[in-house]
Amino acid sequence: MKKWVYYFGKKKTEGNAKMRDLLGGKGANLAEMTRIGVPVPPGFTITTEACIEYYRSGEKFPEGLKEQVQEAMKEVEEEMELKFGSKERPLLVSVRSGARVSMPGMMDTVLNLGLNDETVEGLAKMSGNRRFAYDCYRRFIQMYGDVVLGLKPKAHEIDPFEAIIDEIKEKKGKRFDIELDENDMKELVERFKNLIKEKLGIEFPLDPWEQLWNAIGAVFKSWNNERAITYRRLNNIPDDWGTAVNVVAMVYGNLGDNSATGVAFTRDPATGEKRFFGEYLPNAQGEDVVAGIRTPLPINKEGKSKEDEVSLEEAMPEVYKQLVEIKDKLESHYKDMQDIEFTIQEGKLYLLQTRNGKRTGFASVRIAMEMLEEGLLTEEEAIMRIDPEGLVQLLAPVFDIKEKERAKKEGKYLAKGLNASPGAASGKVVFTAEDAVKMKDEKTILVRLETSPEDIGGMAVAQGILTARGGMTSHAAVVARGMGKPCVAGCGALNISYEKKEMRVGDKVIKQGDWISIDGTTGEVFAEKLTTYPSEVIQVFVKKEKKLEESKIAQMFNKVMLLADKYRKLGVRTNADTPEDAAVAREFGAEGIGLCRTEHMFFKGDRIIAMREMILARTKEEREKALEKLLPLQRDDFVEIFRVMDGFPVVIRLLDPPLHEFLPHEDKEIEEVAKNMNVPKEELKAKIQSLKELNPMLGHRGCRLGITYPEVTRMQARAIFEAACKVKKEGVNVIPEVMVPLVGHWMELENQRKIIEEVAKEVIAREGVELKYMIGTMIEVPRAALTADEIAKHADFFSYGTNDLTQMGCGFSRDDAGKFLPVYVEMKIYKKDPFQSLDKEGVGQLIKIGIEKGKKTNPELEVGICGEHGGDPDSIEFCHQVGMDYVSCSPYRVPVARLASAQAALKEKKKV
Amino acid sequence: MKKWVYYFGKKKTEGNAKMRDLLGGKGANLAEMTRIGVPVPPGFTITTEACIEYYRSGEKFPEGLKEQVQEAMKEVEEEMELKFGSKERPLLVSVRSGARVSMPGMMDTVLNLGLNDETVEGLAKMSGNRRFAYDCYRRFIQMYGDVVLGLKPKAHEIDPFEAIIDEIKEKKGKRFDIELDENDMKELVERFKNLIKEKLGIEFPLDPWEQLWNAIGAVFKSWNNERAITYRRLNNIPDDWGTAVNVVAMVYGNLGDNSATGVAFTRDPATGEKRFFGEYLPNAQGEDVVAGIRTPLPINKEGKSKEDEVSLEEAMPEVYKQLVEIKDKLESHYKDMQDIEFTIQEGKLYLLQTRNGKRTGFASVRIAMEMLEEGLLTEEEAIMRIDPEGLVQLLAPVFDIKEKERAKKEGKYLAKGLNASPGAASGKVVFTAEDAVKMKDEKTILVRLETSPEDIGGMAVAQGILTARGGMTSHAAVVARGMGKPCVAGCGALNISYEKKEMRVGDKVIKQGDWISIDGTTGEVFAEKLTTYPSEVIQVFVKKEKKLEESKIAQMFNKVMLLADKYRKLGVRTNADTPEDAAVAREFGAEGIGLCRTEHMFFKGDRIIAMREMILARTKEEREKALEKLLPLQRDDFVEIFRVMDGFPVVIRLLDPPLHEFLPHEDKEIEEVAKNMNVPKEELKAKIQSLKELNPMLGHRGCRLGITYPEVTRMQARAIFEAACKVKKEGVNVIPEVMVPLVGHWMELENQRKIIEEVAKEVIAREGVELKYMIGTMIEVPRAALTADEIAKHADFFSYGTNDLTQMGCGFSRDDAGKFLPVYVEMKIYKKDPFQSLDKEGVGQLIKIGIEKGKKTNPELEVGICGEHGGDPDSIEFCHQVGMDYVSCSPYRVPVARLASAQAALKEKKKV
Repeated sequence: MKKWVYYFGKKKTEGNAKMRDLLGGKGANLAEMTRIGVPVPPGFTITTEACIEYYRSGEKFPEGLKEQVQEAMKEVEEEMELKFGSKERPLLVSVRSGARVSMPGMMDTVLNLGLNDETVEGLAKMSGNRRFAYDCYRRFIQMYGDVVLGLKPKAHEIDPFEAIIDEIKEKKGKRFDIELDENDMKELVERFKNLIKEKLGIEFPLDPWEQLWNAIGAVFKSWNNERAITYRRLNNIPDDWGTAVNVVAMVYGNLGDNSATGVAFTRDPATGEKRFFGEYLPNAQGEDVVAGIRTPLPINKEGKSKEDEVSLEEAMPEVYKQLVEIKDKLESHYKDMQDIEFTIQEGKLYLLQTRNGKRTGFASVRIAMEMLEEGLLTEEEAIMRIDPEGLVQLLAPVFDIKEKERAKKEGKYLAKGLNASPGAASGKVVFTAEDAVKMKDEKTILVRLETSPEDIGGMAVAQGILTARGGMTSHAAVVARGMGKPCVAGCGALNISYEKKEMRVGDKVIKQGDWISIDGTTGEVFAEKLTTYPSEVIQVFVKKEKKLEESKIAQMFNKVMLLADKYRKLGVRTNADTPEDAAVAREFGAEGIGLCRTEHMFFKGDRIIAMREMILARTKEEREKALEKLLPLQRDDFVEIFRVMDGFPVVIRLLDPPLHEFLPHEDKEIEEVAKNMNVPKEELKAKIQSLKELNPMLGHRGCRLGITYPEVTRMQARAIFEAACKVKKEGVNVIPEVMVPLVGHWMELENQRKIIEEVAKEVIAREGVELKYMIGTMIEVPRAALTADEIAKHADFFSYGTNDLTQMGCGFSRDDAGKFLPVYVEMKIYKKDPFQSLDKEGVGQLIKIGIEKGKKTNPELEVGICGEHGGDPDSIEFCHQVGMDYVSCSPYRVPVARLASAQAALKEKKKV
Repeated sequence: MKKWVYYFGKKKTEGNAKMRDLLGGKGANLAEMTRIGVPVPPGFTITTEACIEYYRSGEKFPEGLKEQVQEAMKEVEEEMELKFGSKERPLLVSVRSGARVSMPGMMDTVLNLGLNDETVEGLAKMSGNRRFAYDCYRRFIQMYGDVVLGLKPKAHEIDPFEAIIDEIKEKKGKRFDIELDENDMKELVERFKNLIKEKLGIEFPLDPWEQLWNAIGAVFKSWNNERAITYRRLNNIPDDWGTAVNVVAMVYGNLGDNSATGVAFTRDPATGEKRFFGEYLPNAQGEDVVAGIRTPLPINKEGKSKEDEVSLEEAMPEVYKQLVEIKDKLESHYKDMQDIEFTIQEGKLYLLQTRNGKRTGFASVRIAMEMLEEGLLTEEEAIMRIDPEGLVQLLAPVFDIKEKERAKKEGKYLAKGLNASPGAASGKVVFTAEDAVKMKDEKTILVRLETSPEDIGGMAVAQGILTARGGMTSHAAVVARGMGKPCVAGCGALNISYEKKEMRVGDKVIKQGDWISIDGTTGEVFAEKLTTYPSEVIQVFVKKEKKLEESKIAQMFNKVMLLADKYRKLGVRTNADTPEDAAVAREFGAEGIGLCRTEHMFFKGDRIIAMREMILARTKEEREKALEKLLPLQRDDFVEIFRVMDGFPVVIRLLDPPLHEFLPHEDKEIEEVAKNMNVPKEELKAKIQSLKELNPMLGHRGCRLGITYPEVTRMQARAIFEAACKVKKEGVNVIPEVMVPLVGHWMELENQRKIIEEVAKEVIAREGVELKYMIGTMIEVPRAALTADEIAKHADFFSYGTNDLTQMGCGFSRDDAGKFLPVYVEMKIYKKDPFQSLDKEGVGQLIKIGIEKGKKTNPELEVGICGEHGGDPDSIEFCHQVGMDYVSCSPYRVPVARLASAQAALKEKKKV
């Protein structure tokens, strides 16, 4: 006879943690806890094989299952000293599904199974609480009706059981379920039973065994309900795995004063501190804690905030001692901070659940590093334990949570937008970049409908950015993250009027100069000044205001980084356009610049004038004259950057954006520029008009500029190589990599390469220095990836520009996707915003094709990524898998990338 | 001893047409002409193998070559009764390269080789013309200097020989070379020789044999000059093919009155008529005909325009008779109309060249069909002989060429733009679509900077379209071609002022209401009314004003089409949005609609109002109310189209463009719409603003609309299926194929398919008819092609939207590419505009990947193309090769597609 049922309990435990495939995650875990001596209510697991056999035989229970379940139930009865179906001391059970992997949303659960008109009286007697017993009963009927009898309403439909409850509450003038009394519960039980009869024409089954078998069948069937099928399809889970069924004895924390229920974390989930941390309620059920009707008490003296609170440690010292032992056991067994649920029934402790606890990024670092010190984790395990995203929290300035709560209470909370760049900032509202610059000695928050490259100056001096439009990868968000500056983007509730220099949220009016605070970590916006302070890591590594020895958290951060470097294989570079950014990135461990955008340099100060002269030139000669003015400025920028990056490669991208972006747009400004340039206003306007494009993203930009205006490429190449020669003479080890943007055809690169090489040869010969350099290209046009074999013949390196590759590969305008992409993510068409996390199935194919083809014709090809994805852990793992040499990301994400790279390498090692 | 030299001449001819690889194209052809008895000056070909051996041995002539050349030269001397290097009767030769395939631009040629200070006197004696002899000599020195001695100037440099000529002309006060006399020529000879001495420090070689060997070496070397290497790289010609060298006796048409030179076509290249057609000049050289100094005479009496002209037929009846025999021989040998060059030296006829003649589309049809009748061509050969593009000329309305010439003389010629849609049209200038509509009872030409979908109404009533911006695939061009309406696009010389309602070209001012004429076949624009008339084919097939029996050209057209249908494998459908277009396409043989765009329907008449209500709706209910108004209108459109397409499938694309396109943009219009809709103007403006997109092409459009507003998809599906059921009841065999646009992810299609199927089921059940239908998708996003295996699971058909696929695959905005794509095409980065002819290397890969992956998971998948490329012969061949089921193109290109499909099938057959 095949074994379908695995028992777990004091007497014997037949399963263990390794039997996930057979017992499901939950079943294996319950067995494991029991096996290591943690008190868990006894029960048994019906195997996934039974489920598969159930389907194979046309939805019939396999032979022998009945007997094995009856046998196991007997053991539960013995252990619990109760009896299933007894009128005196009834054993009640929970019935839960449990597949190999967690499938939230498909789990069907029935609690309190075994209750009927007779056993409910037994429960009433045992608990000394008839209301409780009937409450359990009516809940059971509802759950049974929903799950087993299929009365669960579809989304947007009203649950017929809830309708009845509402009716009774209204009749009685009550607001909450908790206010209903024993007789109300009894009435509910009767009406629920009638409802089932009316709706389905059947009687609610009073026989506990009939209840049990129907519940088991329902759980099996739930494997093939629509949402489970959808979930599996979305997560690539095979349909033939099946689900296990867990039948577990119910225990109650509300059977008197020596009963209780509680939740706890084995360490502090906010700070990571090693202290046992939790709450409990005497004589209560788990639900009561969640409902928040009664105020829970701390589990230990340490957690007390008032003297007169009685902690569990004081109320039941023996049980508390046992709980501490258990939490130590669980932590050392699971090697992670645990989030546990427990119930004390008549002085007897039961663990109902243990799982890895959720924690802040802050806590995740501390816990992992301390567990490593404690010898609980190996280095590799510790690395894998930290959420790379969480590292960002260590860098961001912070608001005090209590301050925020106070502000909310006082009506100062305004709205919530996207948490586009983490950190907290307060300042006076300004609505234009110029105003921000004018007020640069004050703290400002730049508030815009959306930002554009012209706003860079204002963004640089503002404390934070707040926009009404745009998503996580809008200009504002990207630049803010690049600057390590807090940003709340796409805050649709804002009604901004540039004319009136004010914004409205409902009836609140915020005028220019009013203080606001934005929390980029949460997306919250407040209408007052909340104080912020830079994180310790920033104080130590960037501001150098504190020594490493003085900050425990900075030391931990440092340790994580050194560990990550030990295991990672990917190089980590940074996207930096200024010496300042480059310097920050080096402090964070960047091994070079993966993307230095030259266009931002043209917005600085007076340069925009020369740039505009270049764009508006009527002849090649005029254009070259304007370029002559830009040359020394750009050269000086490169000199500074090369010095900062001594010993590391610097990838410099040639001019990329459409020229239109450099021109003035507002009438007044056009007039001013026309006057400055000594050009008739109408002519300037006409030129601006002629440069306007319907789809600038796909327009005259990138190498298309360098091909139609080779003198621009020539000037930029000259600036790069003259700067490189200059610093080389100073003894700086300079490694320039010149990157041609937006190449789609090998001949574009060949064309630009020739110009760059000519200039390089000439400058190097003239300066008489030895200089190694590379010339390569962005791969950001789908065609480039598809024809990478041809392109690689002319490239020393590829750098994947995954922002544009995603835009073109998926056909999404990053700036316009706000209208549909959030809907897509919500509908799970894309699981994550493809601008934040690489679309591996689609865009990923282009990357793979490009690398394979590129390396085929040029095995020496260096390959990296410089899109926003270079700082996203999931995408970094992909970059590792497809064999890139490095990732490049904004300075403040370099730590994230270092850690994520190490994790990618370790995951691969584990597979092999 | 290896054979390096192949002789051709009367006595013996060693080569033939099949020896292309060994003798090069020119050499094989000269041999072939000689072999079939056509008189060609004798000569010999040095093989490509000799060239390869030359390089293999470090640029040394292979052993035995000298002897074989000397031997062959002797035979030439004998045949010509002249002697190489003779002072009395010198033999002069031409030395020309000639590879396996024609490589225009790399061909180095030296004429008159063998001249020196002594032989020139012999030539003078023989010709009786010292000026001629010295002219030959100075030309020879220049050519030798350029080609053999490497003095050929680079682009933009001045030829040092030309500089001397200019100097002498200035000194003498002459304007043309022809005005220089014998002594000037002698001076040139001396100064040229001195130039060589000064520049290179060597004497110009007087020994004819030295001249010859240096020239042969130079031709070999020219195989590896920069422009030849570039040409080979661009055309995938292997570097190791080498070039042959042809040494041919010079003959002269200017040795007296019984000498002459001429060119001729074996049939009329303009009309295709079978008549011998050409010109000659007595006592002249080929160059004189080209220079146009003397007026050439007709070769036969038939060609005489004046009585006193003496035709060759009259002047030299014997030679003419021989020429006629030769042209018949060449035509029947080469099976194509020939373009020949001949020289008569002292009564002796020589053919210097024969090649397939260029002809108009008109002529190409007539020649092929008549040669088929004559039994000269098989059906398959006749099909292959017609340029599919040329068919368009048979459909386009026409201007009289003489009228145009007159207009030009009278200063009525304005400018030239792109010949975007063939045909001729005249009308009064209007600058707005509304004005065109207002004046719809008059003939108008709509002149715009560029057009947009709002202009459709105006375009439909105008005779032709003229735009200042945009390329061959701009909105104006595409729509005009779709409408079969003449269009000149991107006419940059126009200076349009909407405000003043006028345009300027230089100092000419054209005001609204003035007559202009545009020739879409040539791109010319005239400032007056030129008369046009519809072509005979249109009169017969579309207008039905003429019977097929009455038009010879329509009969020929018809015959070509029937022949094409016999051999083609691809289906040919049409892109048509209206019953009228669909009807035209059926007359042209379309087998269904491959793309019916539903959005154009929303612009018609009052519908735009309901459409705007839909877009501006604040709630789902408001939106549904507006959609209710659109439903019956759209249904009626489909009813008409289904009726016209009885028996054929109709692919209907759901709403595709960004909603913004339907809204008013000008202040005044917004005010009007706001009033009509009873909405505050500011609210309307804000809504329009909020719908504006930075890159609308990659924005909220296509199925993204249907997913965010499922009620739109539902309405459209309802209109389609209700219309289908209605006509089905009438007995129409309706085959709807519903197409979801802009799918990039399979879940998008799954989502829309579900909605469409639900509606279909409901409508079909309600109407109680049997109806087969398909649901499929455009493949136009690169991601869709890459993940076609997943998408095909939810699709009954794919239709490649290659316009958008090119935009996204190459990263080119079709509307903005005008600034760089023409430069790219000029630089040969793309050989053709990728919007006109499919980019096979790049976008083609996406198509191949998509078909392979799609058919893998869905072998029944129907695959077609509905982008503009569906009407391009080159792209159609590709579609055939990758296994598509059909192509779809605008109605007026259906004949082109039918013919191109047949040619693709025949080409494939030939390969197998």
